[in-house]
Amino acid sequence: MCTIKLQRQSKTPLKRQIYQTLRDQVLSGRLYAGYALPSTRELAEQISVSRNTVCEAYDMLITEGFALSRQGAPTRVADGLSINRTLPDIPKIPAINEPHYLADFRTGRPDLRHFPKYLWQQTMHKTSEELSLKEYSYSSPQGMDKLRQEISAWLFRSKGLSVDDRDIFITSGATQALHLIVNLLGCHGSKIAVEDPCNKGILQTFLDADCEVEPIPVDEKGMQVEHLSGIHVNAVYITPSHQFPLGGILPACRRAELIRYAEDSGAYLVEDDYDSEFRYIGEPIAPLYAMAPQRVIYVGTFSKVLFPAIRIGYVILPRKLQESWCELRLHTDVQNAPFEQAALAEFLRMRKFDRHIRSMRKLYGERRKMLLNAFGSNFGDTWHAWGDAAGLHLAIEFPGMKFDDAFLKKCMESGVRITSVERHSIQKGRHLDKLLLGYGHLEPGEIQEGISLLHSVVKSK
Amino acid sequence: MCTIKLQRQSKTPLKRQIYQTLRDQVLSGRLYAGYALPSTRELAEQISVSRNTVCEAYDMLITEGFALSRQGAPTRVADGLSINRTLPDIPKIPAINEPHYLADFRTGRPDLRHFPKYLWQQTMHKTSEELSLKEYSYSSPQGMDKLRQEISAWLFRSKGLSVDDRDIFITSGATQALHLIVNLLGCHGSKIAVEDPCNKGILQTFLDADCEVEPIPVDEKGMQVEHLSGIHVNAVYITPSHQFPLGGILPACRRAELIRYAEDSGAYLVEDDYDSEFRYIGEPIAPLYAMAPQRVIYVGTFSKVLFPAIRIGYVILPRKLQESWCELRLHTDVQNAPFEQAALAEFLRMRKFDRHIRSMRKLYGERRKMLLNAFGSNFGDTWHAWGDAAGLHLAIEFPGMKFDDAFLKKCMESGVRITSVERHSIQKGRHLDKLLLGYGHLEPGEIQEGISLLHSVVKSK
Repeated sequence: MCTIKLQRQSKTPLKRQIYQTLRDQVLSGRLYAGYALPSTRELAEQISVSRNTVCEAYDMLITEGFALSRQGAPTRVADGLSINRTLPDIPKIPAINEPHYLADFRTGRPDLRHFPKYLWQQTMHKTSEELSLKEYSYSSPQGMDKLRQEISAWLFRSKGLSVDDRDIFITSGATQALHLIVNLLGCHGSKIAVEDPCNKGILQTFLDADCEVEPIPVDEKGMQVEHLSGIHVNAVYITPSHQFPLGGILPACRRAELIRYAEDSGAYLVEDDYDSEFRYIGEPIAPLYAMAPQRVIYVGTFSKVLFPAIRIGYVILPRKLQESWCELRLHTDVQNAPFEQAALAEFLRMRKFDRHIRSMRKLYGERRKMLLNAFGSNFGDTWHAWGDAAGLHLAIEFPGMKFDDAFLKKCMESGVRITSVERHSIQKGRHLDKLLLGYGHLEPGEIQEGISLLHSVVKSK
Repeated sequence: MCTIKLQRQSKTPLKRQIYQTLRDQVLSGRLYAGYALPSTRELAEQISVSRNTVCEAYDMLITEGFALSRQGAPTRVADGLSINRTLPDIPKIPAINEPHYLADFRTGRPDLRHFPKYLWQQTMHKTSEELSLKEYSYSSPQGMDKLRQEISAWLFRSKGLSVDDRDIFITSGATQALHLIVNLLGCHGSKIAVEDPCNKGILQTFLDADCEVEPIPVDEKGMQVEHLSGIHVNAVYITPSHQFPLGGILPACRRAELIRYAEDSGAYLVEDDYDSEFRYIGEPIAPLYAMAPQRVIYVGTFSKVLFPAIRIGYVILPRKLQESWCELRLHTDVQNAPFEQAALAEFLRMRKFDRHIRSMRKLYGERRKMLLNAFGSNFGDTWHAWGDAAGLHLAIEFPGMKFDDAFLKKCMESGVRITSVERHSIQKGRHLDKLLLGYGHLEPGEIQEGISLLHSVVKSK
């Protein structure tokens, strides 16, 4: 507890030593603006001096404006005193929030401006008050019972999917789900087949676990599963409801072939259903899971539907894997915190979730139309859109064009954040003619201005 | 959205089909007590029948007591109707909360009955209202700025440790910190030296990452670091402030030797400071980190000091590792949720944290004395306690005794949950004479009755 080292033999009085030490710590920024100094009694005990000595030192600090005192509150460090600390050689930490762009078409961002933040806060207040003390301790690596029940009910009412809540396992988002899955399937040095193109963040999750990745090409209907024949893998990662990034829906015959492959080879199918809540025409796509619940690991997430920082996703696991999943989670990060789980369960139970999805589906559907119209009015008929009318992103093909790194750099410099399908491709050179745009988080005006800005960059190419 | 499949050709009227389907779903437990049925308008739209048909079906359900209707609220499923679902072949999921014991000496549990739950809730309410919308999106794999600043300030005022907040990285508890560290140091197939005995949960975390483990023996002063010479490892895992489970404090000469070893070999020292807040006599032990900040990865946690379900820990990282740490976290589970981080920052800022630690330190210190007294009055002088007067657990040696699996099983059967140091040992046979008891979560009466119960089991051995 000795933040102050006194030189008791020194000629400088103790109160001055205390004053100087604290003052220097304020100036160096170590004690920052608003920092509450210990009470005079506490500090006196800590450094074994009389309370009066500390009081005198504090009075000097207050008098000279280094600290502020208010009746009944601790003495706090005053504002604006820190002289910049110079700390050499701190590497730049990659921030997720990057500079502002004039047009920001990055993918995977819901529109938080329409999120009912106040309603969520109220729900969280209410449910956190109801948490029992038991839930402040370690509870379960599987996740909260009532949340799993509500997810089961939601899957049934939204997709007609009948899932026992005991087969559902809560995770810290879909990323953790995939991280755990590859570790569970013993992928160190073993193989996973992935769609090519495939979300490159997810690919990195597999590579970080020392997985060998086997790319399987994708066409407008999703993974070309015939390419799996003759290949041995432990798992197949697939986005059958809405392929990322190309947008195709995997047709029934390919689904059947995939399941036969899995059953014959003993591989698991990892179904990532990252945004099927947002389909703008027709019924939601039935998950692959429904066809083979003991061969498919279904991955769902609330990051896109609610908000990314909620850090809640889930998997539906074949029974064979459940015990080792819990063991693995226990030694990875134990469990989710209870506060968000309880709030989400209540959000589902009260159908605030359903209501939010309905209104966002309408909004995103309109934005998708807006985006397509903007392409039409700027680019004429030189392009066509890939995939199903669903999700928060769109792949646009410009036959004959090449959107290479130089082009993307030029976009950046012009204030347009955009990526290409090529950037998410493993085998390079096959998707250079396709741009990839996230639009869910953009207001109509932002979409129109963004596409017109993009048009001027493409024209000057 | 079709939870109800209608047979339009059937002779059964549609309203009866709707009624029957919902009734069966209630009886099967699929629609559970309190579940809100869709509004009659919604359901009518979904299954394409007139609203009147749905109203009639609902009336039947309400009349027969399957559902309850209240003005202005959704119709909900009534209580107590579910006939047990029989689901064969669901494996037992290991629950963390296990049956109640007459005496429960498990380790690593703080006493939550003394946690200021209401104060925490209030803090969480306040800080979650202040969160900006930006913090509902992806923010940073490093963790919230203000939390890192408060942790830095706390480390300084509690241990005199001067750490730049930019060197602190928030994690989902210490378990995740260790999971990430072994993945970061590329431990797949590579080596980590650990204390033997060592917390067996943590050992499992290393083994799950395919680490090869090199056990280094421990004596009453902690790791016998001379055994490291001639061994090549990527990292050394160590608990120098309070060895788990034996309780020793690593002396300065061993610390220096350890750092020389690390500097010569390029290995990192992973310092797990899991409970040094609770030391009952004298000043807190200075972390190893202070001696070699670019060779030591310091791991801290709030699970023991506040409550386990908070899921917040942190690491202090050498600068060389910081960029790849962020990359790895991004592809493991992205980041912590903001709600607990903001609340904890405020808890620290307002010194509610310091106050809680002070009062718990006093309480735990008394319980430790109580435990030692209870051993004295029950077991005479046949035993002695290992380690420093610190932490929430105690290792007790009974020279000549053998606490093997049969003995521990007998304890279990007598209602005493207890473990042995042997259970946490890698090389078996060296610590059979030592029991390991967690006492922090036990009231004085529970301690006294527990030890007397333990005494009767030992006597009957």
